[in-house]
Amino acid sequence: MTINSALSKLSVLLGDRLSLSKSDRENHGQSEAYFPLTPPDAVAYPSSTEEVSEILKICNSENCPVVAWGAGTSLEGHALALEGGVCLDMIRMNEMTDLMEDSFAVTVGPGITRESLNQQLRATGLFFPVDPGANASIGGMAATRASGTTSVRYGTMRDNVLGLTVVMADGRIIKTGGPVRKSSSGYDLTALFLGSEGTLGIITSLTLRLHGQPEAVSTASCGFDTMDAAVETVIATIQYGIPMARIEFIDAATAAAFNSYGGMDLPETPHLLVEFHGSERAVKEDAQRFGELIDDMGGSGFEWSDNRQEGTALWRMRHNAYYACLGLRKGATAVVTDICVPIANLAQAVRETRAEIDASMLQGPILGHVGDGNFHALLLVDRGNAEEIAEAKRLANSMARRALRLNGTITGEHGIGAGKRDLMPEEHGQNAWDVMGEIKRALDPNGILNPGKLVP
Amino acid sequence: MTINSALSKLSVLLGDRLSLSKSDRENHGQSEAYFPLTPPDAVAYPSSTEEVSEILKICNSENCPVVAWGAGTSLEGHALALEGGVCLDMIRMNEMTDLMEDSFAVTVGPGITRESLNQQLRATGLFFPVDPGANASIGGMAATRASGTTSVRYGTMRDNVLGLTVVMADGRIIKTGGPVRKSSSGYDLTALFLGSEGTLGIITSLTLRLHGQPEAVSTASCGFDTMDAAVETVIATIQYGIPMARIEFIDAATAAAFNSYGGMDLPETPHLLVEFHGSERAVKEDAQRFGELIDDMGGSGFEWSDNRQEGTALWRMRHNAYYACLGLRKGATAVVTDICVPIANLAQAVRETRAEIDASMLQGPILGHVGDGNFHALLLVDRGNAEEIAEAKRLANSMARRALRLNGTITGEHGIGAGKRDLMPEEHGQNAWDVMGEIKRALDPNGILNPGKLVP
Repeated sequence: MTINSALSKLSVLLGDRLSLSKSDRENHGQSEAYFPLTPPDAVAYPSSTEEVSEILKICNSENCPVVAWGAGTSLEGHALALEGGVCLDMIRMNEMTDLMEDSFAVTVGPGITRESLNQQLRATGLFFPVDPGANASIGGMAATRASGTTSVRYGTMRDNVLGLTVVMADGRIIKTGGPVRKSSSGYDLTALFLGSEGTLGIITSLTLRLHGQPEAVSTASCGFDTMDAAVETVIATIQYGIPMARIEFIDAATAAAFNSYGGMDLPETPHLLVEFHGSERAVKEDAQRFGELIDDMGGSGFEWSDNRQEGTALWRMRHNAYYACLGLRKGATAVVTDICVPIANLAQAVRETRAEIDASMLQGPILGHVGDGNFHALLLVDRGNAEEIAEAKRLANSMARRALRLNGTITGEHGIGAGKRDLMPEEHGQNAWDVMGEIKRALDPNGILNPGKLVP
Repeated sequence: MTINSALSKLSVLLGDRLSLSKSDRENHGQSEAYFPLTPPDAVAYPSSTEEVSEILKICNSENCPVVAWGAGTSLEGHALALEGGVCLDMIRMNEMTDLMEDSFAVTVGPGITRESLNQQLRATGLFFPVDPGANASIGGMAATRASGTTSVRYGTMRDNVLGLTVVMADGRIIKTGGPVRKSSSGYDLTALFLGSEGTLGIITSLTLRLHGQPEAVSTASCGFDTMDAAVETVIATIQYGIPMARIEFIDAATAAAFNSYGGMDLPETPHLLVEFHGSERAVKEDAQRFGELIDDMGGSGFEWSDNRQEGTALWRMRHNAYYACLGLRKGATAVVTDICVPIANLAQAVRETRAEIDASMLQGPILGHVGDGNFHALLLVDRGNAEEIAEAKRLANSMARRALRLNGTITGEHGIGAGKRDLMPEEHGQNAWDVMGEIKRALDPNGILNPGKLVP
């Protein structure tokens, strides 16, 4: 019952698809975030659900930890093998296995990336809308319950994953859900695995909901004197039923980053950026109605475009926001953290966060998916400077606790991973966190699945 | 450790809010469906979460079954006390406890009904969209993961319940989620309890997502020669991105019922009924675009209206469809059953179901929420005739198995209850059904919560 004896058995099963090389292990021991290098003992490259099942049977009998790996774009160190063991890199399971165009559904392997999926779908007139920014794997996006800029219209992974194939800790293969729009048949196991961060089972196949590519797209953007005015505009936009496909805000610090990185000439105040999807005529009207609302709400610098490729200048910059913000400090790394609050509390949450970052030693532009009440701070640190990392962590924890005071959640879309586990009982209460632990122990009694994450 | 000793303790706790009267027990022992009278041993009327917690502590220590009761509108006998015990009638916990208008959210007790909630919300400009037809309790709708006519636009209970307060079997009180649009913090316990039919915990409070009341509403309707043409029209409508708020179909038998009950003069063929929500101008355009599509798809008798109160004549009848169908046979009761399939398989599912009902001794109009691939058969029986009930059950089971053959689910919105439990392993496979049982045993080790339902 050791990791080593598991590795010998896995080596027989997988041959050269079990890698013990230092470089491979190190590539699977770091993330985009600030966590220290944490290599697994080995990296496995399974090619089928049945093979994942055989791997888990071995690991379960040997008490060997198993951590799944997608594209490595997690921001909270979800896929770090904190207790060693085997990293399952799902890259070989990256096929579109069943396209059901007329049912607006597709089945894919977990290793397919979002961009690759949408490229393969292009000719069908359909697309998969969840867009977290990074070119993440669909399996990873499911495991973290990801979302992004389009969720205000199309929903999160929770709304767009219809079914899963999952291998349980003991190797049993189960299927949940299927290519139907809804079901009231039994426990919603699909939803339970979404966001379980690899602690309850390994996702080996996903059936996704697809949407029609919009006939036309328009974009609009404008500035505001205050965050409150910007947030009140968002609330009014929702109340008036203007159907946004995306609605993003950037704060004054982000506007400053856009000016210096992109040579823009924005007033350094909060801005809103909106996108509309629909018929040619509808998207023009939506942008114009939004423009009228801006006037009423005291916005300025309103601009709009119905050129799908170009959009407004501000939108072109938004797609490079991460690099624009990094550009504020040469050689910096960003500790990127997120929270989500009820929309009515968003202005306060941003205002207080802005003030706290301004009072710290770090720069930290704020931007986010304002229609969902979800925003990010990009805290710029020197990766080698422990004091700065500690300060960034302090600010991130303080943001999370602010979210809780304002009736929100410690993460809207990044997940818990290695970064926010200590905050779990503060958000959920000890009782609810205990219930999560009871479910975990019922389904993974030996605790081999991504140990050290998420549950007590 | 008996039901009787639980009842003595509950009587001390609740006084005259524990009822042992025959009429009260019988009122909580029947449903709208065809199940035999199954009275609980007592009916409790709790008034707070803390009181529900005390009740469950007693029942858990005495191994006394507990079944929650909302408005009694379930169609599959969910709330029948199959093993006796206490029925918890949530009628006293029916308040709107926290209205968060600017965050588009509200917190309510489980006993509030959908219509009462929307009456109380009227002046706010907001509404709760999930509409299963019956004036069900919100708690019951959550417990069965209900949906209805508007789900194609606004989603099901899964999409519109943001958070819960739940009392666990041992009396622990937990909170899940909250008034935020999304979260990626830990297991999605909210989703786990939605659709768990009272087998994992008792829901004592719900935070719901609200939507802006539409500025304008338009409706349209038309006929088709075949089901296939109607379904192809639905698929095209989704592909073209015409934003339906409701899209219903009725089959030829339902059209015949409308003619005889409502004195209409419809061709006795399949029909589609559509509703649009948006600005005055948008809903006119949507109806007109739909009309153009109908022409291309070979529909006929296209009619539309932008009068919100009236709508088209066919829509007025649709709201009375249940009674119109019952009117086909004097004194009949309807065994109402539902399935849901991928949209591309809907025409085949309806066609085969129609043929099978036509070959049986029963009448059974078919209608449904075609945008979701979900439809109902209203099988007309004489409640006292065992042979007819058996034939209706045979037809319902055959429909469910047809749904599975066509990649669908045995129920889109009615749930499992006492009616469909035997079909669970056929849908989910023994492994996934076992996983549901493992979760159940972890959270309710004594099996006191709605025993005999849902899990192995």
